[in-house]
Amino acid sequence: MSRFRITVEYDGAGFVGWQRQDNGLGVQQALEQAITAFSGETATVFGAGRTDSGVHALAQVAHFDLVREFTAYQVCEAINHHLKAAGVAVLDAVVAEDDFHARFSATGRSYLYRITNRRAPLALDRGRSWRLKGKIDAAAMHEAAQVLIGKHDFTTFRATNCQAESAVKTLDRLDVERLGDEIQVRAQARSFLHHQVRNFVGTLVLVGRGKWDADDIATALAARTRSAGGETAPACGLYLVGVGY
Amino acid sequence: MSRFRITVEYDGAGFVGWQRQDNGLGVQQALEQAITAFSGETATVFGAGRTDSGVHALAQVAHFDLVREFTAYQVCEAINHHLKAAGVAVLDAVVAEDDFHARFSATGRSYLYRITNRRAPLALDRGRSWRLKGKIDAAAMHEAAQVLIGKHDFTTFRATNCQAESAVKTLDRLDVERLGDEIQVRAQARSFLHHQVRNFVGTLVLVGRGKWDADDIATALAARTRSAGGETAPACGLYLVGVGY
Repeated sequence: MSRFRITVEYDGAGFVGWQRQDNGLGVQQALEQAITAFSGETATVFGAGRTDSGVHALAQVAHFDLVREFTAYQVCEAINHHLKAAGVAVLDAVVAEDDFHARFSATGRSYLYRITNRRAPLALDRGRSWRLKGKIDAAAMHEAAQVLIGKHDFTTFRATNCQAESAVKTLDRLDVERLGDEIQVRAQARSFLHHQVRNFVGTLVLVGRGKWDADDIATALAARTRSAGGETAPACGLYLVGVGY
Repeated sequence: MSRFRITVEYDGAGFVGWQRQDNGLGVQQALEQAITAFSGETATVFGAGRTDSGVHALAQVAHFDLVREFTAYQVCEAINHHLKAAGVAVLDAVVAEDDFHARFSATGRSYLYRITNRRAPLALDRGRSWRLKGKIDAAAMHEAAQVLIGKHDFTTFRATNCQAESAVKTLDRLDVERLGDEIQVRAQARSFLHHQVRNFVGTLVLVGRGKWDADDIATALAARTRSAGGETAPACGLYLVGVGY
């Protein structure tokens, strides 16, 4: 038996999310079907992050086991060859240690959230960015975001259906930067709560609009209730950028 | 009567190209239908560049006339509201001089060609970039590209069905730069021949592969026959980036 670690890119628009679901195709399932197609084996693919429907990945990491002998190169080529869904691709495959686990061995996750701050609809970035009209102050968002850095109870920013045992997480980075009409939010932590990045973004936009300031973010964080935060930013702007081990 | 100048973004994948065609929807036609829908008038939309099927635009420029009174703001909003095709958006509209012509008044056009140099298929940039496997030397491509700068007979790099009267054009810029696994080719000139940028790219890739050098590019240029050049790079990697006046 060999354990393989793969790096996966996908366009979230074509999937119901990472996980297998009854209502459509999950990325996990698309990969499992391709693995069965070339190997004849039934493998379960474990991902580092269970991205929601519509969320993209530049470099999701996953692992699975195969009994028959394959090289990592064969595995990478064969999955890409057999993938039926066009919006997913394996960037890389390596043989991993037997105790490597894509989810539990991960020591860091990085996300990017893209906002396009313009009046016109998105023709090229439709489903790839959150379009927001009107003036947004990215520098003010960045400054306020720094209030969230460190170890906190992030109940205000977790989905009400989040299944994590504890809402206490340590946020290592939350940077907001304007590049032309695009505003990029980059978040990094060991792990995130369900909707945490999207709730950060939806709340920080209140600061960008001048409705809130950094003190309001601190007050919302301290409130430890979801209703104290801003809206959940849409899934389409979110990208899982990388996983550290 | 007022003449309006609009800046248009589109995803070439959804269209048969800029021009009205019998075999599908042109961007021009999509805009004309939206203009008729809000104004009740039949307008012809003239574009600065007649991009081919699959070619994208970040900032195509076009003009048209309306008899009834509208502000530029109304025109921009109304076209976006009435556009049926999702892959096109008007970024900006201004009232133009009566003698302004999007095509004939243009003094410069800029194109970007995107190559993704990797083995894996494209999940997120499918239809947005030309994927090429194997080693490509972008610096060698850039150096060889400089042979093409200036005033030349570009017959080697024009489509055999190109309808321009003369193949003599002045190329102002042809830069090739690697950014991670992406290779960007940026071309600028007063105007281009049909397929000129795509033929530049297809030929320069021979240099990137080490099969040709800068002297071979010079020889191909001097031959003044399409068969002396490399292949035509696919439409999906090409973006009309801007038009100068």
